[in-house]
Amino acid sequence: MKKKYLRNNLSEEIIINKYLNKLNFNKKGTFNFKNDASYIKLKKSSKIVITTDSISESLDFFKKDNPKSIANKIVTINISDLYAMGASPYAYNLSLFFPKYIDFKWIKIFTKELLKLQKKYNFYLLGGDLSKSDKLIITSTFFGFTQQNKIITQNKVYLNNDIWITGNIGDSYIGFQILSNKINIRNSKIKKYFLNKYYFPKACKIDSEIFKYVKSITDISDGFIGDLKKMLDNKYGAKLNLDKIPFSNFLKKLISENKISNKLILNSGDNYELIIISDKKYRNKIINISKKSKLKITRVGVVSKKIQILDDSNNILNMPREYDHFL
Amino acid sequence: MKKKYLRNNLSEEIIINKYLNKLNFNKKGTFNFKNDASYIKLKKSSKIVITTDSISESLDFFKKDNPKSIANKIVTINISDLYAMGASPYAYNLSLFFPKYIDFKWIKIFTKELLKLQKKYNFYLLGGDLSKSDKLIITSTFFGFTQQNKIITQNKVYLNNDIWITGNIGDSYIGFQILSNKINIRNSKIKKYFLNKYYFPKACKIDSEIFKYVKSITDISDGFIGDLKKMLDNKYGAKLNLDKIPFSNFLKKLISENKISNKLILNSGDNYELIIISDKKYRNKIINISKKSKLKITRVGVVSKKIQILDDSNNILNMPREYDHFL
Repeated sequence: MKKKYLRNNLSEEIIINKYLNKLNFNKKGTFNFKNDASYIKLKKSSKIVITTDSISESLDFFKKDNPKSIANKIVTINISDLYAMGASPYAYNLSLFFPKYIDFKWIKIFTKELLKLQKKYNFYLLGGDLSKSDKLIITSTFFGFTQQNKIITQNKVYLNNDIWITGNIGDSYIGFQILSNKINIRNSKIKKYFLNKYYFPKACKIDSEIFKYVKSITDISDGFIGDLKKMLDNKYGAKLNLDKIPFSNFLKKLISENKISNKLILNSGDNYELIIISDKKYRNKIINISKKSKLKITRVGVVSKKIQILDDSNNILNMPREYDHFL
Repeated sequence: MKKKYLRNNLSEEIIINKYLNKLNFNKKGTFNFKNDASYIKLKKSSKIVITTDSISESLDFFKKDNPKSIANKIVTINISDLYAMGASPYAYNLSLFFPKYIDFKWIKIFTKELLKLQKKYNFYLLGGDLSKSDKLIITSTFFGFTQQNKIITQNKVYLNNDIWITGNIGDSYIGFQILSNKINIRNSKIKKYFLNKYYFPKACKIDSEIFKYVKSITDISDGFIGDLKKMLDNKYGAKLNLDKIPFSNFLKKLISENKISNKLILNSGDNYELIIISDKKYRNKIINISKKSKLKITRVGVVSKKIQILDDSNNILNMPREYDHFL
């Protein structure tokens, strides 16, 4: 664990010894954070899956967001990538760039939430570094291992493959729209529902059996269309059945009231649900896994030759990047 | 490789496909940066050494510094930690937070220098993410492997152990003082010498034979005294022979002219030279390795009971943290 540049009244020793140390689960390779570097000991010949993702104040969260929510986001954004590759989280490194307003109370809540998530998903803090910056920035590198030998990636896509989505999409984006004062929802229960989806997104852990039957998986971190486009990699397009896109009942209602367009939802927001691409012949296998594991998996379209994302009436669904949230 | 939030005229696709892609050496586990995560395949049961370090504009470098120097710093700061543990670099992940002033010319020079360093030290870019920020921030996680089984850490220190330093210290700090207009050097050759040490610090790769004979090693990233204190971990102090501290001839001259105090130098600056702590009985072994490998290693003091860093006349050498550079 490295430390530098923090101001005198926010002692790095206290941050590390009082708060971060709880997160290393006394694993030998962390050296109790007294060493700059750490190690992972690997029991057998294997592949270690590695992913890095960052979240920044005023880009991925608001300055006044609950530290719990911020802790949840840095974990979700990373383990979601591991899950999409069929890997389970094992450990992580954390780089914390703290601006002046961060105090011990903030750090206490933040690390308590990390600890909760570590216990829930069974991974530990390996190391990292502390520095300062004008805005809060958190970068994390996660390490995971796969059970199956096969590593699933994002870009194995073929013509006429099925396109599926897990869970529902769009709810967290509505939460963000509410906080940005772009949508007003009077019903406090419904408002709370959307805000909670924004503050506490969940990564989708899928039954590893599915990896036998899929070509490609990715998690939705850049809007459904954006991530689908990345999978199609300018080689294919997609034809989507708009009626099949899985929305929550609350969101369906907003769409029917014209408070939000489904096109905007398709192009926006972090969801951490998975996009799955598979051969048609495994359609029933995937439906069975969905039933067995009680995970909603909805077939929403098909990979097509024309390099565009179209609906059934051939309307173009992808929007230019200006629509990216937070921009 | 993740990408988000960069502005439209700085296309992430171009950054990745034109510049960063050259850095993955076509390794299978990088998926040519088309996947969010990556993997490292491990041939046999082994320990993978992991270190994360970050550098930030106006903390670790100046905004107008040559991108070559910045590339050199993010690599040096990380591989230096690997070397200090007896590990060699294998691969790395990179998080780039780009402010508005970063353009393709900057990225071209930066990535060209990374490529040069990767070829020199034999490691490749595994993945990472791109985002934006107000100031340039670069975070990197490096992965390395050790040849010897033993992993050397920073905190195995015992009473009366010898304290050694590799190379010379202080030159890069003088370079920083020149750039901060705190020291004026007229001789352009000498000025260039110090600036070069500031812009292009080198990590100290030490003959792995030495790991048989040392208790602890760390690299100097926070001033010699600061890093020595971290090694002593509030359990011991040190008694140093000030006349033995290794300075370059140019720096000795500055000290003799009272342009800088050696106490300030001992407390300041990134050097990336190593502090080595060893049992007295291996003194000759270490001297022999120094000769054989033509690496200057100087014995500068001894671990003592009193928890303070003192010189031979019992003057306290450690300064309060306000003296940290950049603060």
